[in-house]
Amino acid sequence: MDFLSNFFTLFLGKLQSPTLGFLIGGMVVAAVNSRLQIPDAIYKFIVFMLLIKVGLSGGIAIRNANLVEMLLPAAFAVILGILIVFIGRYTLALLPNVKVVDAIATAGLFGAVSGSTLAAGITIVESEGMAYEPWAAALYPFMDIPALVTAIVLASIYVSKQKQRQAEEEQRSKQEYLGEQEYGSEQGGTAVISKPRGSANHRVRIWPIIQESLQGSALSALLLGLALGLLTRPESVYESFFNPGFRGLLSILMLVMGMEATARIGELRKVGQWYALYAFIAPLLHGFIAFGLGWIAHVATGFSLGGVVLLAVIAASSSDISGPPTLRAGIPSANPSAYIGSSTAVGTPVALALGIPLFLSLAQALGG
Amino acid sequence: MDFLSNFFTLFLGKLQSPTLGFLIGGMVVAAVNSRLQIPDAIYKFIVFMLLIKVGLSGGIAIRNANLVEMLLPAAFAVILGILIVFIGRYTLALLPNVKVVDAIATAGLFGAVSGSTLAAGITIVESEGMAYEPWAAALYPFMDIPALVTAIVLASIYVSKQKQRQAEEEQRSKQEYLGEQEYGSEQGGTAVISKPRGSANHRVRIWPIIQESLQGSALSALLLGLALGLLTRPESVYESFFNPGFRGLLSILMLVMGMEATARIGELRKVGQWYALYAFIAPLLHGFIAFGLGWIAHVATGFSLGGVVLLAVIAASSSDISGPPTLRAGIPSANPSAYIGSSTAVGTPVALALGIPLFLSLAQALGG
Amino acid sequence: MDFLSNFFTLFLGKLQSPTLGFLIGGMVVAAVNSRLQIPDAIYKFIVFMLLIKVGLSGGIAIRNANLVEMLLPAAFAVILGILIVFIGRYTLALLPNVKVVDAIATAGLFGAVSGSTLAAGITIVESEGMAYEPWAAALYPFMDIPALVTAIVLASIYVSKQKQRQAEEEQRSKQEYLGEQEYGSEQGGTAVISKPRGSANHRVRIWPIIQESLQGSALSALLLGLALGLLTRPESVYESFFNPGFRGLLSILMLVMGMEATARIGELRKVGQWYALYAFIAPLLHGFIAFGLGWIAHVATGFSLGGVVLLAVIAASSSDISGPPTLRAGIPSANPSAYIGSSTAVGTPVALALGIPLFLSLAQALGG
Repeated sequence: MDFLSNFFTLFLGKLQSPTLGFLIGGMVVAAVNSRLQIPDAIYKFIVFMLLIKVGLSGGIAIRNANLVEMLLPAAFAVILGILIVFIGRYTLALLPNVKVVDAIATAGLFGAVSGSTLAAGITIVESEGMAYEPWAAALYPFMDIPALVTAIVLASIYVSKQKQRQAEEEQRSKQEYLGEQEYGSEQGGTAVISKPRGSANHRVRIWPIIQESLQGSALSALLLGLALGLLTRPESVYESFFNPGFRGLLSILMLVMGMEATARIGELRKVGQWYALYAFIAPLLHGFIAFGLGWIAHVATGFSLGGVVLLAVIAASSSDISGPPTLRAGIPSANPSAYIGSSTAVGTPVALALGIPLFLSLAQALGG
Repeated sequence: MDFLSNFFTLFLGKLQSPTLGFLIGGMVVAAVNSRLQIPDAIYKFIVFMLLIKVGLSGGIAIRNANLVEMLLPAAFAVILGILIVFIGRYTLALLPNVKVVDAIATAGLFGAVSGSTLAAGITIVESEGMAYEPWAAALYPFMDIPALVTAIVLASIYVSKQKQRQAEEEQRSKQEYLGEQEYGSEQGGTAVISKPRGSANHRVRIWPIIQESLQGSALSALLLGLALGLLTRPESVYESFFNPGFRGLLSILMLVMGMEATARIGELRKVGQWYALYAFIAPLLHGFIAFGLGWIAHVATGFSLGGVVLLAVIAASSSDISGPPTLRAGIPSANPSAYIGSSTAVGTPVALALGIPLFLSLAQALGG
Repeated sequence: MDFLSNFFTLFLGKLQSPTLGFLIGGMVVAAVNSRLQIPDAIYKFIVFMLLIKVGLSGGIAIRNANLVEMLLPAAFAVILGILIVFIGRYTLALLPNVKVVDAIATAGLFGAVSGSTLAAGITIVESEGMAYEPWAAALYPFMDIPALVTAIVLASIYVSKQKQRQAEEEQRSKQEYLGEQEYGSEQGGTAVISKPRGSANHRVRIWPIIQESLQGSALSALLLGLALGLLTRPESVYESFFNPGFRGLLSILMLVMGMEATARIGELRKVGQWYALYAFIAPLLHGFIAFGLGWIAHVATGFSLGGVVLLAVIAASSSDISGPPTLRAGIPSANPSAYIGSSTAVGTPVALALGIPLFLSLAQALGG
């Protein structure tokens, strides 16, 4: 009962957050046929600003972190970020009628990290008087960025394979057509030449697709920000420019995504229950896997119990901030209603109201 | 004498305000044939940002207000906002050579509210030790937004009627031409069919025009901001993003409007005196009507004397902030030199130097 | 030894500054064939914002300065700003393989002023207990803006002369071609008519080019800002909007300039040593000339010794802030790698580590 009332309070609070408010606002604007528009140049620049900020904050956090001490937990965070996307790829994406790119984008968002969920986790761990390493919060970019990169690369591979398959099918039907013609003609040379070309390319080559993804504007901006955060001292410009505007620019991005979502919300009618199911189970599953890996670090290197809980919270959280702009630009064919809806309406309340108390009790039971 | 010196001090101060400074700067830039330009995408986005901010601040103010207690004064504020535009429509707009859309836009600006005039009013009411309800300042969006919506809708109706009339005249001259031809021809069928079509459409249908106005980018952004301010909790993003940039973005809009104004300032040569007359009388007239309605609320529901004065000040003020971007986007054919010039150069100094002392003395005389 | 270690510490620090970091980031982004792009409308608006801010801050500084008292030093600052550009025009620009527009732009940047070098100078003068006029820092716009205007005008004149010469050569080769034909033809009229036209225009008329430069978007924005800073009271909008975003917008401009620089860095291979030589000598030479002029003011009007040192520091500094956007927009054909590289990598460290101590010791030796 307490959980349910907590859950609904959080759920209603989320609906009033500016992020979701602007998303719904955009949907309403589109639904009433308003002529309101955000110019394309502005939209692209807003995405750039958001991504470079996500990269910069990650880079600064990693640069300021004690890398030697946090080596094992950081490695686990990277593994978790990648693993979560693969879990989504081979569970949610295989459910009936679920579109693969939508599922990969959703898994990417659940692999990415929510700063506000992490902040809630830290507050509660502190209020329980549980010790944790000061660098534990700096684990987030190690999970966040690998998850988003993995999602974009997996989606690119999938889209390329689809195109390859389509091209092959067209080739085959063309060959068959040609073949039919050839029975009546003198020479079968064309079919002989074109057939091996089709089979030789049957396996899509992965590396060019990864390279292509990294050269895309989304990952370029993210990695540029990361590199600048790691290698230069952008704190002054980050604090005075990139950070203060972030939430505002995000709200405008949400408005644009809402305006687009109206046209695509219908796609989710048949599959809404699968997204709800995934968004309910995923935070807990990811959190428990992270808890297990954190426990290994606890036994092996003395990683604190509070740190184990925070690693689980980071894994359980789904990004409401870094994820949407990155996925929007990196996987443009995915339906934002699917991933933002799953994360904001179900995933985040579950992580906050159910996940954090569970991981905390578990740590206290095991560590006591 | 004291009034005149006050008036000219305020007038000179206004000329140095960034708002008017950038407007005049834009006029000079255009006059010397500079190639300076603000890209169109930027301009549209700036207008969007300004309008959504105006809506958000109105929505937040209304949400935080005690609606039951302020019901009657708020209703009077809405009535005043609409009434002021109609007064301008049937006085200023009927003067010789005055263009109707320019007059409606000017009346819209005088119906809208100036935050700085209101702030001056509050300061003076407080310094006189006169009591007023804490929610009195929150009356402003109830007048501001209805005035702007009314002005845009009235202008749309006027423009549609004009087009209708033009089309009819073209139709008629075509018919006459055809008619002349028909005298010489065998059949008069065309004229018989086309004539009733013209007379049936003689009355412009209002509702589609209102709907069309509300779907336009200006009112959409304004109402979206209002809805988000009312129904969600956008305070964080409002304080960190939409509010701080407001005056800066407004200054750039003023620059663009100045660059456009140069080409259109000549239009005002024959009618400048009418705008000056309107801008001198209107603040006092609107203020006294508002004082009268406020007094009814004072007698009926105990609305404070300070509140009555503030309602009069709100009605006397003309918007230097919310109005220009809204009218620029909502009534694009109106000449900004007309409405901004009337409001900034005459209306606001009159409201400040003449209106506030008058309403205050009246309240003290009546209430003492 | 101490100088060298100081120099390299500063040099490494500069490489980590956001300004240079984003420039190098842009170069890397372009080198790896990323599809990252900043929309053109955004880029143009960023340049506008930077230039109007530079103008505003200069205008505000001049308005707040005591013009009568600072008349002679201010006049010297204007002379220095113009002189430095001419020095570069007749030294660096004449070196083998150095492109003239690149050299003029570099000289413009060395004539313009670095706020951070000036701040370092003030700090050191204060820590030595040396007296200086409070308005000494306000001398910077008197050197900064004339230097940038001079550079843009000189570059325009050069480019126009080049075009003129090309046109004449084409004309001449055409005439020769026609002449050859004419030997075989009956009439030589065309050559007779066209020849005087060529020689009459041999001298490029300067004033139209200056007017054209001032009407360009770069100088228009700069001078508009200057006029608004001088004649209106834009402090509120400057502090809330134009100033806070400045470093952030500059970092994005640097990114764009870096993306363009990659393609043009090869141009500098043969001439890099000349730029390094110029960037090493110029700050000291400019500083000593300024010191000499400052000393004249010291003897003639009692200009303080600290003020003399600051005038020398202002002249020795090269702009990392106001210069790049102005020159980028005002001399679009100049290679940003040349002028930003010279200033940031060599000029500024030399001015800070070598110039300031030299001018200070000189003043103490002469004044003691």
